[in-house]
Formats: sequence, C-alpha cells, structure tokens
Amino acid sequence: MNPTAPFAVALVSGGLDSMVAAASAREAGYRLLALTVDYGQRHRVEIEAARRIAAILGAERHVVLPLDLRAFGGSALTADIDVPRDGASGGGIPVTYVPARNTIFLSLALGWAEAAGARDLFIGVNALDYSGYPDCRPDFVAAFENLAALATKAGVEGGRFTIHAPLLHLGKADIVREAARLGLDAGMSWSCYDPTPDGLHCGRCESCGLRARGFADAGIADPTDYAVRPEGAR
Amino acid sequence: MNPTAPFAVALVSGGLDSMVAAASAREAGYRLLALTVDYGQRHRVEIEAARRIAAILGAERHVVLPLDLRAFGGSALTADIDVPRDGASGGGIPVTYVPARNTIFLSLALGWAEAAGARDLFIGVNALDYSGYPDCRPDFVAAFENLAALATKAGVEGGRFTIHAPLLHLGKADIVREAARLGLDAGMSWSCYDPTPDGLHCGRCESCGLRARGFADAGIADPTDYAVRPEGAR
Repeated sequence: MNPTAPFAVALVSGGLDSMVAAASAREAGYRLLALTVDYGQRHRVEIEAARRIAAILGAERHVVLPLDLRAFGGSALTADIDVPRDGASGGGIPVTYVPARNTIFLSLALGWAEAAGARDLFIGVNALDYSGYPDCRPDFVAAFENLAALATKAGVEGGRFTIHAPLLHLGKADIVREAARLGLDAGMSWSCYDPTPDGLHCGRCESCGLRARGFADAGIADPTDYAVRPEGAR
Repeated sequence: MNPTAPFAVALVSGGLDSMVAAASAREAGYRLLALTVDYGQRHRVEIEAARRIAAILGAERHVVLPLDLRAFGGSALTADIDVPRDGASGGGIPVTYVPARNTIFLSLALGWAEAAGARDLFIGVNALDYSGYPDCRPDFVAAFENLAALATKAGVEGGRFTIHAPLLHLGKADIVREAARLGLDAGMSWSCYDPTPDGLHCGRCESCGLRARGFADAGIADPTDYAVRPEGAR
C-alpha cells in the first residue's frame, strides 16, 4: 500500500454490504480507517465479523467504539422487540429501523475523518434492498454531505468531504457479484438479525432471506451456515 | 408540569449556555429529556454539573451517555494538547474545537427524540462567542434540521423536527441576563476548560475569561469560585 495515499474512514458493521463498500475504498487506493460502532445490538457475532473484515482488508486502524443506543430504546435491534420471522416486514418502515442510526454513524466517521485529515467516508447503504429505511436513500446521503461541509473546520476552511456510497443503487445480487469481483470471502461477513446460540445464521429472518436470495440470484454459491435453509436459497 | 405536554430533548453539557437553553425548553412548556454526552473530556466536574442542572430543571429523564471520542483524537479537550491560557486563542478556529462534536451530539439527540416521539431538540450554541466553531453557526443548525427531515422515519412520514438554538444570536452577557430572568442559579453551571485539583474554575482559560466578562458586562454578580481572578472580572 502506498504510504502517502489519503486515508478514508469506512463504516464496517460486519455485514456483507459494508465489507464490499470498504473494499471499494481500498480498490480506489485509499488507506483504510475502519470504524465499527458497537451500539448494543443483540448479535455480538457481528462485531467479531467486523474485526475479521478490518484485518483482511488491511485497515491501518480499526476502532470498535462502544455506544449504548439501548439508552434510548426504539428498535428491534436494540430493545426487547421481536425480530420479524420469515421475511415478514409488513411494508413501510421496518421494526428493525434504529432511529437516526446512519446519521449517528456518519457523524462519528466524520469526527474521525477530520481528526485524521481524511476527506472521504465510505458507507455500505443501498436504497434498493432497504428502501424502507430513510437513512439509506440518496437524498439522505446528499444532505449529510452538505452538512459535513458546514459542520467542520476542514469544510469551512475549504476542504470537501465526500460521502461514498458505492452500493447505493445496487441490489443484493449485484453486491454479491461485486464481492466476488473484489476477491472477497463473503463467508466472513454476518447478516443474521437473530443468530442461533451456536453462532449460525438463523435462516429465517428478513436479513438471512435477503442474503440467500442475493447469492441465488447472482448464481454464486452461498458460503453461509444457516440453521434453517432460507426460502429462495439454492 | 402538564403530563401530556410534548417532550423535547435538550443537550446539557454542564455549562451555562446549555443550562439556559434547556430552561428555555421548560419555559416553552416541554417536558424535558436531558442528554449529556460523556466524551472523555478532561473536566469530569462538568458531568456533575450536568446532573445537578438536569435535576433542578425537573428533567423526566437524564441520560449520561459515555462516548469515548478520545479514540479519534484531534482536540485539546479530548487529547493531550495544552489548553490555551490567558484567553489566547490566536484567531481562527480554536484548538479546543472537537471535530464534528455538535454534529455527533445532535445526531444522538435526534435518535433519542425519534425513539421517544419528541420532535424538538434544544442546543445551547451561540454564534457570537464561538464564531470560530463552525458547528455553532446558523447555517450549521439549518443544515442539521434539513438532514433530520430526511434521516428519520418520523421525518419521512411527514413529521417535522425543529432544532431550537435559542442563544444563537446572544452574547455571553445576554445569556447571563437570560439565566437571571429564568431564575437560574448560574453558579450550578461549569465553564472552565482546566479546573484546579480542588475543583475550582481556573480563572485563566478562555472559557473562564468569557464567563467572567459576561457577568461583568451584564452587571450581575458572578457566583463562580475562580482560583485566579479572570481579567475583565469585576
């Protein structure tokens, strides 16, 4: 890696999407600062996946930042609300939506970027699979970029922060193909909202279903260990 | 207090400005949710001041949220950089600027507000005394309000978040007068960047100087225990 290349801060959750987004930053020539926010989600296995991903991508630093969003409540991922089974989201904005999550995560990434002299942030949001999440949409990303220019010393002094969302217009099958093109082992990533006690993907939650269909639609073998074979898997 | 009044989330740092901003929320009839971010600042006395202020203002909940921004570095308030003495800021953006701090704090307040069904956020920024801080300016506040509408389920569903910055155009003397009008004991608040070991305001940092001049200019007795009498104090 070029030791004088610019840094980029990439949000790495442990999931497939953010793994591919962070790998895109590396492919574009950035040195990687990987940020994982440990926000009290139920699935600790995600944090372990994030550590493996940061290491395999050669991140120069990986910060796992504890932030207990359970203090606020309000989501199936942080509070005692049942995760929907069998892909049943019921339309509208999902129960797994965490209030202002991506705003909080990008703000933290922005703080690190400014402190480290980085001007580029990478986030793995995509508007197709997560159309129900307001903070996965193009106008959200644009509004945050506008805010970053006004919110920071670097921005006010003429620097320009760019929020890269390379998956914004991709579906899961495209992302699976992109992972393969980048030579990533998708099996290192974690998608399940409701892991089994022995650390398998449940195979029944919405996120497992989306993952399995992504591999099936891409025509690429799914390396995931599911406890139950998801609908639509091959 | 009206038990059916709407909630507002107020950022309470322990300082005078956020105390007055939070008290404005109460005066306007909101039930108060007080948020203090414990971001690893040097002066723990500030957190204790925030607890006293939340209690005296009758906050229905006070969350002190640990968030270790020292993981990122980059400011005299969070890293090992000397705090400037004798009010010497040298012009431009001060060394005490914390990268993206108010963006991070408002994002967290937004998350709590959405989870609690609140649509109003209060922050004690003012553009006059802190003109060097980009995230204390009117266009920053406006850009965050715009982001909040796009970033949240409530915003996308037609709700409207309002970022109240009632001190935005006030100077410190005005804020001291406003504290007196609201019947607040300003001595409960904490301003000093560099407290003495026995818990006094140092009287020599920029923040102590600003505080002391605010009371002097307002013609109101300064209740603060300073280790050294600040320049401009009466």
